[in-house]
Amino acid sequence: MDYETPQFFRVMQYAQRADRDVVDMVSGNPDWEPPQALREGLRTYADGEPAEFQYPDSVGLRELREEIATRRGVDIEQVIVTNGAGEANHLAMAESLEQMSGDEVLLVDPVYPYYAGRAEMLHADIRFVPATDRGGLDPADVYEQISEDTAAVVINSPNNPLGVTYDAETVHELVAAAEEHDAMLVSDEVYDHFDYSGRFESALSVDSPNRIVTNSFSKSMAITGFRVGYAIFPHPDGPNGGLMDGARSRHMLTNVTSSRPAQAAVLHALRNTDPSYYEANRDLLRERIDAFTDALDAAGAEYTEPEGAFYVMARFPGFEGTMDNVERLIDEAGIAGMPGEAFSDTRREWMRFALVTPRVGEAADRLAAFFDAR
Amino acid sequence: MDYETPQFFRVMQYAQRADRDVVDMVSGNPDWEPPQALREGLRTYADGEPAEFQYPDSVGLRELREEIATRRGVDIEQVIVTNGAGEANHLAMAESLEQMSGDEVLLVDPVYPYYAGRAEMLHADIRFVPATDRGGLDPADVYEQISEDTAAVVINSPNNPLGVTYDAETVHELVAAAEEHDAMLVSDEVYDHFDYSGRFESALSVDSPNRIVTNSFSKSMAITGFRVGYAIFPHPDGPNGGLMDGARSRHMLTNVTSSRPAQAAVLHALRNTDPSYYEANRDLLRERIDAFTDALDAAGAEYTEPEGAFYVMARFPGFEGTMDNVERLIDEAGIAGMPGEAFSDTRREWMRFALVTPRVGEAADRLAAFFDAR
Repeated sequence: MDYETPQFFRVMQYAQRADRDVVDMVSGNPDWEPPQALREGLRTYADGEPAEFQYPDSVGLRELREEIATRRGVDIEQVIVTNGAGEANHLAMAESLEQMSGDEVLLVDPVYPYYAGRAEMLHADIRFVPATDRGGLDPADVYEQISEDTAAVVINSPNNPLGVTYDAETVHELVAAAEEHDAMLVSDEVYDHFDYSGRFESALSVDSPNRIVTNSFSKSMAITGFRVGYAIFPHPDGPNGGLMDGARSRHMLTNVTSSRPAQAAVLHALRNTDPSYYEANRDLLRERIDAFTDALDAAGAEYTEPEGAFYVMARFPGFEGTMDNVERLIDEAGIAGMPGEAFSDTRREWMRFALVTPRVGEAADRLAAFFDAR
Repeated sequence: MDYETPQFFRVMQYAQRADRDVVDMVSGNPDWEPPQALREGLRTYADGEPAEFQYPDSVGLRELREEIATRRGVDIEQVIVTNGAGEANHLAMAESLEQMSGDEVLLVDPVYPYYAGRAEMLHADIRFVPATDRGGLDPADVYEQISEDTAAVVINSPNNPLGVTYDAETVHELVAAAEEHDAMLVSDEVYDHFDYSGRFESALSVDSPNRIVTNSFSKSMAITGFRVGYAIFPHPDGPNGGLMDGARSRHMLTNVTSSRPAQAAVLHALRNTDPSYYEANRDLLRERIDAFTDALDAAGAEYTEPEGAFYVMARFPGFEGTMDNVERLIDEAGIAGMPGEAFSDTRREWMRFALVTPRVGEAADRLAAFFDAR
């Protein structure tokens, strides 16, 4: 399995070349409006002094870091603003591998392909912990795989591709596992605003020098192209404090700093966006999940119950999630999903559908009709 | 010498705490207006469709890559848009080390500290080639150090910190040296719009699979905080084509993509900015150089003749460029420069002054008065 060339692009290209209308359920790009305050923030920034167009602090605009620190209840010295959660995860994984004792990264199977690709780029050994049948993560399975060779355990909750959310007990036990084995728990929480279960628990809820929390505004503000994310590291003056110092250096030497117009716009939006903005988008997703899972039920499909994020992973009777069948679904039903093998060799029978299109209802109808005709 | 914590910050902090007015000649941030079209581009972008706020292609907005490829006379497949020249240099160095035979990076002494810090982060061996007495680079000195252990030779012309510009013959011989030793010449040309000598030659002028050219719009458009740069690699279908493939993967797995509002604004500015914008800023710098070097002459200082970029490196009789003397110049003359040791152990007697302040004339007067009183 080649994690470095995501199959994402192959599917997108096939769908674009298709000789018919296709509902895109491949990409994880929100299709709704960003906050009005974000547009305002960008406009105000465009009229600023020349000095505002120059390098911010390498670790991010001070006011943005303060805002994040206050909201997350951490010290500002723990916060680094990154080029999206992608870079936040990169810094977290790279510094864990550089500074913790092991050379191995534990990932969950099925995996968000970037984690695995990044681990390979960093020349780490990769070990997979299988998700449970219901899509969750059993800490006992992590305990079975974690060892002194482990530098980092990387989790994502709410989860892509499974759509599940890990509860408090799971997260607390995962931090404990990391503590016991001198490893870091890297908890990627970019979908934290999209929890439909009410069970989501941030790893920040556990006070520990063995966890790094990463996040971004890409999904919550519908701005995946802006690249404003952050990582919260253990305090630089405490145990494992070297990770923050290392991340600062790595960020500076890789990117110098993150883009300032995007940081300024996000800061303005953070300060001036009502909670109802986030609630409305969550409600929208809930409706889409209902419509789509109804169609899956009608098709006799098995699927992981969507508790969070934007995704449903499903298995259809007699119709495996191979690339051939993904292409057939594009050509014959006009729906583009992702083949399960993009996330795991063990998921070849499955397909993942992203619900970030206003046409989820239409896709549900097409899906029901397609399987009805078989 | 610790390249990972640039002394830059130490000097800036000292200057900010000083009990008097200080002219900042430390940072390399342009102090003039960005192009009007850049502000326009940002405003237009702020009003765009939600889809325009999502991920662009990982390698950059297609139209921006096309614009760059056309202007630089290369194939679009050779162009990757990066988070500033910082990331462009990072990708170039990392992939050279990953794919070329050696584990060593050749740098010029004195060095822009980020190159050395980055080489250390990448666990490369570092070998220095001394600049000539006049600040240039003699290819014969490179030939003396380059070997099969060399993965990359990193140059910067027009040069920071020396302010010199390498001529065509030098650049051609450096590419030849890289070719002969299976290494890459990484030519960082961010100051290409600030050549006062008329001698600047881009490494693109040599058709070779052994050179990577990096650049950005940070200096030419006075937007160091935007982080829009690019690298031009050998064509992916030709010799050393794997470097471009590797850079694409590394960029994707590190940053996913660069920030889109900044890319959109730069694209609009590239298309709608008259050459007179760049000429006016070049003329402004020429005047500043004259004013400042007159003061250096009056102080009896030795200095490298500024042919490009924003910097003058100078040595004062009986006043070495130590951190102590840098602090003394802040306290007693009200001028903040950089200690030479930030760039090289061999430059402890020198100081670097950046000319990106409207107060260069004032600084020149203060300098003349300070040394006159000694």
